[in-house]
Amino acid sequence: MPDSQLLEFFDSPSETTFIIEHVNEEFTSVCPKTGHPDFGTITVRYEPAAVCVELKSLKMYFQSFRNEGIFYEAVTNRIREDLATTMSPVWMQVITDWKGRGGIRSRIIAEHGEVPARF
Amino acid sequence: MPDSQLLEFFDSPSETTFIIEHVNEEFTSVCPKTGHPDFGTITVRYEPAAVCVELKSLKMYFQSFRNEGIFYEAVTNRIREDLATTMSPVWMQVITDWKGRGGIRSRIIAEHGEVPARF
Amino acid sequence: MPDSQLLEFFDSPSETTFIIEHVNEEFTSVCPKTGHPDFGTITVRYEPAAVCVELKSLKMYFQSFRNEGIFYEAVTNRIREDLATTMSPVWMQVITDWKGRGGIRSRIIAEHGEVPARF
Amino acid sequence: MPDSQLLEFFDSPSETTFIIEHVNEEFTSVCPKTGHPDFGTITVRYEPAAVCVELKSLKMYFQSFRNEGIFYEAVTNRIREDLATTMSPVWMQVITDWKGRGGIRSRIIAEHGEVPARF
Amino acid sequence: MPDSQLLEFFDSPSETTFIIEHVNEEFTSVCPKTGHPDFGTITVRYEPAAVCVELKSLKMYFQSFRNEGIFYEAVTNRIREDLATTMSPVWMQVITDWKGRGGIRSRIIAEHGEVPARF
Amino acid sequence: MPDSQLLEFFDSPSETTFIIEHVNEEFTSVCPKTGHPDFGTITVRYEPAAVCVELKSLKMYFQSFRNEGIFYEAVTNRIREDLATTMSPVWMQVITDWKGRGGIRSRIIAEHGEVPARF
Amino acid sequence: MPDSQLLEFFDSPSETTFIIEHVNEEFTSVCPKTGHPDFGTITVRYEPAAVCVELKSLKMYFQSFRNEGIFYEAVTNRIREDLATTMSPVWMQVITDWKGRGGIRSRIIAEHGEVPARF
Amino acid sequence: MPDSQLLEFFDSPSETTFIIEHVNEEFTSVCPKTGHPDFGTITVRYEPAAVCVELKSLKMYFQSFRNEGIFYEAVTNRIREDLATTMSPVWMQVITDWKGRGGIRSRIIAEHGEVPARF
Amino acid sequence: MPDSQLLEFFDSPSETTFIIEHVNEEFTSVCPKTGHPDFGTITVRYEPAAVCVELKSLKMYFQSFRNEGIFYEAVTNRIREDLATTMSPVWMQVITDWKGRGGIRSRIIAEHGEVPARF
Amino acid sequence: MPDSQLLEFFDSPSETTFIIEHVNEEFTSVCPKTGHPDFGTITVRYEPAAVCVELKSLKMYFQSFRNEGIFYEAVTNRIREDLATTMSPVWMQVITDWKGRGGIRSRIIAEHGEVPARF
Repeated sequence: MPDSQLLEFFDSPSETTFIIEHVNEEFTSVCPKTGHPDFGTITVRYEPAAVCVELKSLKMYFQSFRNEGIFYEAVTNRIREDLATTMSPVWMQVITDWKGRGGIRSRIIAEHGEVPARF
Repeated sequence: MPDSQLLEFFDSPSETTFIIEHVNEEFTSVCPKTGHPDFGTITVRYEPAAVCVELKSLKMYFQSFRNEGIFYEAVTNRIREDLATTMSPVWMQVITDWKGRGGIRSRIIAEHGEVPARF
Repeated sequence: MPDSQLLEFFDSPSETTFIIEHVNEEFTSVCPKTGHPDFGTITVRYEPAAVCVELKSLKMYFQSFRNEGIFYEAVTNRIREDLATTMSPVWMQVITDWKGRGGIRSRIIAEHGEVPARF
Repeated sequence: MPDSQLLEFFDSPSETTFIIEHVNEEFTSVCPKTGHPDFGTITVRYEPAAVCVELKSLKMYFQSFRNEGIFYEAVTNRIREDLATTMSPVWMQVITDWKGRGGIRSRIIAEHGEVPARF
Repeated sequence: MPDSQLLEFFDSPSETTFIIEHVNEEFTSVCPKTGHPDFGTITVRYEPAAVCVELKSLKMYFQSFRNEGIFYEAVTNRIREDLATTMSPVWMQVITDWKGRGGIRSRIIAEHGEVPARF
Repeated sequence: MPDSQLLEFFDSPSETTFIIEHVNEEFTSVCPKTGHPDFGTITVRYEPAAVCVELKSLKMYFQSFRNEGIFYEAVTNRIREDLATTMSPVWMQVITDWKGRGGIRSRIIAEHGEVPARF
Repeated sequence: MPDSQLLEFFDSPSETTFIIEHVNEEFTSVCPKTGHPDFGTITVRYEPAAVCVELKSLKMYFQSFRNEGIFYEAVTNRIREDLATTMSPVWMQVITDWKGRGGIRSRIIAEHGEVPARF
Repeated sequence: MPDSQLLEFFDSPSETTFIIEHVNEEFTSVCPKTGHPDFGTITVRYEPAAVCVELKSLKMYFQSFRNEGIFYEAVTNRIREDLATTMSPVWMQVITDWKGRGGIRSRIIAEHGEVPARF
Repeated sequence: MPDSQLLEFFDSPSETTFIIEHVNEEFTSVCPKTGHPDFGTITVRYEPAAVCVELKSLKMYFQSFRNEGIFYEAVTNRIREDLATTMSPVWMQVITDWKGRGGIRSRIIAEHGEVPARF
Repeated sequence: MPDSQLLEFFDSPSETTFIIEHVNEEFTSVCPKTGHPDFGTITVRYEPAAVCVELKSLKMYFQSFRNEGIFYEAVTNRIREDLATTMSPVWMQVITDWKGRGGIRSRIIAEHGEVPARF
């Protein structure tokens, strides 16, 4: 079950602005309609305010979706909310890319704050 | 025969802005001039207002073009109209990429509303 | 409906051995179980004996599967039989590559006569 | 000899703005200096005003350059002028990409009207 | 829990020799040592004797490993044994490709019967 | 018009066996049936006996097919014959790869003498 | 131990604005938490003011991180600070791309001054 | 020795704005420090004012750097100056991409005039 | 310092023949001549007799070369000997691929026992 | 001027058979007919008998062709002879791949001794 309490944070190592991007190519959850597993890639991109998410805790958080029945759109918005609430970044972008189902593959993009135009 | 009544919708899971993209690499219709099949990839990208299109119904809708005689430009505009009319998205972009005919391959881009500059 | 009478042939232009390969990346038929369309690539490779298959007739023959409900394995064996019976090649290899269904993509290889080891 | 009279047009199927792109990867003309053939890819991208160019007539028009001695820059500007004059599009972009000569490959970009910044 | 009783079969559609290959790019199981998920691609290649494995049942069989703690080598040999025992193919090859762990990615190849040299 | 008298040769620079491969990615001829141009890549691979073909003369020879109406199979066999007759190589392989026509792309392989198994 | 005194500089060869980018695909440091080595690619992009960094000294500087226990974010900010302090460029961008750990790969982007929008 | 007198020009074939790009993937000069050869790709992109550079003369000009001992930054600025001085283009961009040295590969970008933002 | 005592083993999970391949893309050692780091990919492919090498111990063994001054050829033969001696596989192949030095990249292949022809 | 005296050797570090491959992607010589530079990639693959070629000396040897007027076939045979004579390997293979001239790219393969079939 998705669990944002798994997330841990550390203080940003710089007072100058910088951007962090983590790409998890091994995400899996379950389609609540068919019960079949979904496979996707999750990209989290953000500008830290005070804290950064610790990498191993992020991995454990992603793994907590493994047997959860949840739609693409809900996964994406859930990750944005969990991370934005706990980290309060200057801005954040969550992109999920899902392997094809019935010949159709999907991408969902959710954002928090003012994402720079180039992304 | 293309049939927009096949389309089903569900309520958007978030009040925060987000973007959805579906890519169907298995689209086929028929050239009305030669009777030969056309093969293409259809990309639908949109920002939902109140509702999102349900994935399986979208697939059935795309399949309803299978034996329809219809030009590239008409397919593209038809999909834009059917989806924009039934979903009323904030904005929508429909891109169709067609396999080569006589050494020429084509792409058609149709838009509804104010598509962000980065797309 | 698959129709081998669409196939036309012309005399081989050389008495010296040579090999011909045609790759059709735009093949579609229908799954007899689900009614959903299947999409694949068909490769036909052969050493002609007396005749070669005419390219446009081969295309029409492939198009005759468009609305036929037929499994991957049956398509592959059907094409091998139709072409081997009508052309009597020295040898022939039919390879079909099918787009993923439920996360699984498939390839079927059927052969007629003594296919050289390097293929 | 390049012949713009080969071009045919049809009425735009939509009053809403849309964009059409045709890519011909099989263009050839002749270098007027060396007499050797040149090979290139021609991309035509435009927003139709009242009419669209018919695909087969565009192919015949491109083929009319086959034995013409003409420089890269002149081919590109000639195509822009012929198409812009006969179609009066809202805007048009013609890009030609030429295979290497003496280790140098070239691209020419010619535009008509106000091409959107993203292209 | 891996369950070979999920597998279903159908009669081979041809008495002539042919080869079938299924590639599942969405396989996941669990590392029995660390408890972390493993992700891999499973390729099953075989020459049917009397029966072929039904595609959807194969998918369900692969999904039954989802929460099983099992090593790469054991997964590979287990799949070979389950399929070889239930189908008795002329020959079979099972190849598993695993995403990197600690910078090392792995492939396991298990075979049953006399696999032709070209594979 | 294809003209083998354009071909020039030079003495092999070594008495030890070696292999030469020339790949022309800019070949064009004309389809005798439709009058439309065909585009292909020609690979000539051989072990010289006494002489090698001079590169510029080979280019001029290939250009002599530019406006010739000739089928794929005939081009391939013609090149094999012209080169084998004039050079008498130990062995030779001519491979032609043709861009798609009606969704089907083709490859023809013609050989002279005993081509080593690895090719 | 990272040592910015290894860096050497030479006078910019032009008074006109220009941009320099160095990409080091062979960077390695050590994870301070696990003691395992990290591998990454470092991109440094800048517009020189008065001086440019000498390439071999940059290589030696990068090598000085080899056995240092340091996090991704700290490496990136450290390189930005060392180079910005010693070179005072008009602007600078440091991008680090790290190979996957536990299925997650990361990129960090740190900037100094006003980086042009296109980068 | 780099020699800008090798450059020849021809009148621009159009009064309408257009853009020309030449990419030379076969550039070589010599490192003045080590005496070892450097290998790079030179891209010249410009909007002609009154004249365009002739392709073969550009090739001869590039070849004149073959045995010159000269740094990356100096090559790039030298080419910009030679071409900008002799052609007076509306704008020009010179990009040099250099193969790796000691695991680091480099790119230098020099510009003349107001280069459009999209490049 | 390379230390084969880091290697651990487990009993082969099958009495039927199978093949294991591990690819480490993050190998680094030091050139004994220049003192500069070398970066390479190590592929170990083998058919186990009684035991298989444990993956994490293999990783630790590879890491023990990190600060060792040792040539490409010696690394390759050392790994073959250490693994062959401790595991006594039916056969083993060790392939090392090294990033370019001075424009030259290298591969070393060392074998133990009778490696099947297809590898 | 090509100079085999630049080559240096070291004793083979193993009495067990192994294979070495060096790939130089930065080779250049001059066409004796046109005076224009040729660019190619040289692959040397061999099984050492008593000695191996030292990498830096091999680089200097390749550089000695820089301003030599010499044909593709002669370069290839010259390298084979120089290396085979000075090293007496069990077998050796020299493959040269040349960038396109007039739309034709070439590969020459020269061998010494009994090269294993898989290469």
